Amino acid sequence: MRLDELGEFGLIARIAETVGAGRESVIVGIGDDAAVLKTPSAGYLLVTTDACLEGQHFRRQWLTANQIGRRAAGAALSDIAAMGGEAIAVFVSAGLPPTEEVAFAEQLICGVHEAAAEHGAALAGGDTFASPDRIYLDIVVVGQAQQPWLRSTAQPDDVLLVTGTLGEVSAALHLLESGQPQDVDGLPSALRQRFARPTPQFAVAGCLQQLSQPPCAIDISDGLVQDAAHIAEASAVALTIQAAHIPVAEACREVATEAGADPLQWALIGGEEYELLLAVPRASVEQACTLVEAEGVELTEIGCVTAGEGITVVDADGKEIELDQSGWDHFGPS
Amino acid sequence: MRLDELGEFGLIARIAETVGAGRESVIVGIGDDAAVLKTPSAGYLLVTTDACLEGQHFRRQWLTANQIGRRAAGAALSDIAAMGGEAIAVFVSAGLPPTEEVAFAEQLICGVHEAAAEHGAALAGGDTFASPDRIYLDIVVVGQAQQPWLRSTAQPDDVLLVTGTLGEVSAALHLLESGQPQDVDGLPSALRQRFARPTPQFAVAGCLQQLSQPPCAIDISDGLVQDAAHIAEASAVALTIQAAHIPVAEACREVATEAGADPLQWALIGGEEYELLLAVPRASVEQACTLVEAEGVELTEIGCVTAGEGITVVDADGKEIELDQSGWDHFGPS
Repeated sequence: MRLDELGEFGLIARIAETVGAGRESVIVGIGDDAAVLKTPSAGYLLVTTDACLEGQHFRRQWLTANQIGRRAAGAALSDIAAMGGEAIAVFVSAGLPPTEEVAFAEQLICGVHEAAAEHGAALAGGDTFASPDRIYLDIVVVGQAQQPWLRSTAQPDDVLLVTGTLGEVSAALHLLESGQPQDVDGLPSALRQRFARPTPQFAVAGCLQQLSQPPCAIDISDGLVQDAAHIAEASAVALTIQAAHIPVAEACREVATEAGADPLQWALIGGEEYELLLAVPRASVEQACTLVEAEGVELTEIGCVTAGEGITVVDADGKEIELDQSGWDHFGPS
Repeated sequence: MRLDELGEFGLIARIAETVGAGRESVIVGIGDDAAVLKTPSAGYLLVTTDACLEGQHFRRQWLTANQIGRRAAGAALSDIAAMGGEAIAVFVSAGLPPTEEVAFAEQLICGVHEAAAEHGAALAGGDTFASPDRIYLDIVVVGQAQQPWLRSTAQPDDVLLVTGTLGEVSAALHLLESGQPQDVDGLPSALRQRFARPTPQFAVAGCLQQLSQPPCAIDISDGLVQDAAHIAEASAVALTIQAAHIPVAEACREVATEAGADPLQWALIGGEEYELLLAVPRASVEQACTLVEAEGVELTEIGCVTAGEGITVVDADGKEIELDQSGWDHFGPS
């Protein structure tokens, strides 16, 4: 059945049935003018929105409907993890072609629901509308944090840390764009999971609550260098990144070498990695590494914060490295 | 200057400057991974999302950029008023052509900001991205309510009440679609304001807090009959609407008569009116009318709730009236 046969309200009823009651903090979920949530008893509310558009953020032939939904939700949830928070409720505005199959729409929304549920949040509402040309998704996440982690709190002498490894998403994109493989299910397993199911770093956000002060934090969505620049600007400091210390993923090295590209550039510039970039005082580094590694996540020291402004990437000899481009900007210029 | 010359982060910086600090409950607004809001001290959180797409929800030649933003924000804010709440913070995901002028984008976001500010809310964040073909806006509103007004609480013997007048939006749409006038600024003043600047009924939501129990409520976004059907379904009741009592707007009567159309059908079916449809116990009707009319808003009794299911529209003789169509469905079928 197509969406224009089932209709908007038929689709919403089916989704409400699939999603079910959700978590206890959702008093009224799908189906009223607005969702009603229990007010968290302490701390702060976090709200983020993250939109994606077919042809701009993803290509339909690369991903199943479920993967499109999961990926979009993972990206939005990552913003809450990057604030040191936990997710409460997820909302999805979905623009879909009226001629699309109902099953496609249901699988897409199910992908959002599954990603939300995996991280303790409920799909609590949204909006659906006809988009003739392209799939639009806007994912909203409401979360909470005792002490939100901001971009603006980096201090001179802080140490820069990054979770996990970088460059997998650039490698996956390179392969998909070359048409080998034709979709994410054909990617090497290390790249497939990373590209199709981005992991918001809630485990890291949880364990680092034990630090005596909240770290400065951002998730790597625009690329390491660009996101570091966001911290530098918001905190009014300079950041130096040691290229030799960047945890470039093995799969990124392999694909880049094969492609005649520089894996380091991919790790520096590639977006949608959803690892966390943190700045913490030197005295907290050891504790942070112990806590994060106990969660099975690597935490690597990649540079430092100084007085000044801007980003410098240096090689092992302290020589500045030129960048191919600065990172991802949705409207084009670098 | 065009968006692809200024870039995404340049645009966000300009918007942050225009919007300023916002209200006290917004601890961190535009510019971090998520907004940080003070948690309301009592009651419940409300969250709604409302998307609109050029060509589906509006035509660009009808509206200025500011009007597009205001209209989209008014529609989303209306959902919070319909829950008996007040708005705290507004978020906007905006997809815009990269070749668009920066001034256009700024005016559009300013329209959202102005509508939010008029109703006591702050523009606290969002997302921007390149949408090559069509302008896309998703507006998220976070609000609060002591006792949310739901669709699901109508009871047999309740009275149906509607705020204001109906049919202006259908009349405005008819004129605009006929090309006379070419844009909303050429509309008769009674229609212009209504079409370009929908008014969320926060005044009604505020004064009706004095009722001994929260009313059943919905805002008229899909059309009176369709929204009444949402109440009937959610509350598992039947609704009867007295056609002769519907407050059909004078401007709607004039335009419909001129067009050879039935003004009653326009008032029954037309969407995007953003008046409130309420169901309250008979014993509360007089108090509700007194309170609402003290705010300068008309409140009209248009029908009643009975045991059963579905919607019936009857004429002065109690004879059922056939509808041209049931209302607005984004995916097509009625």
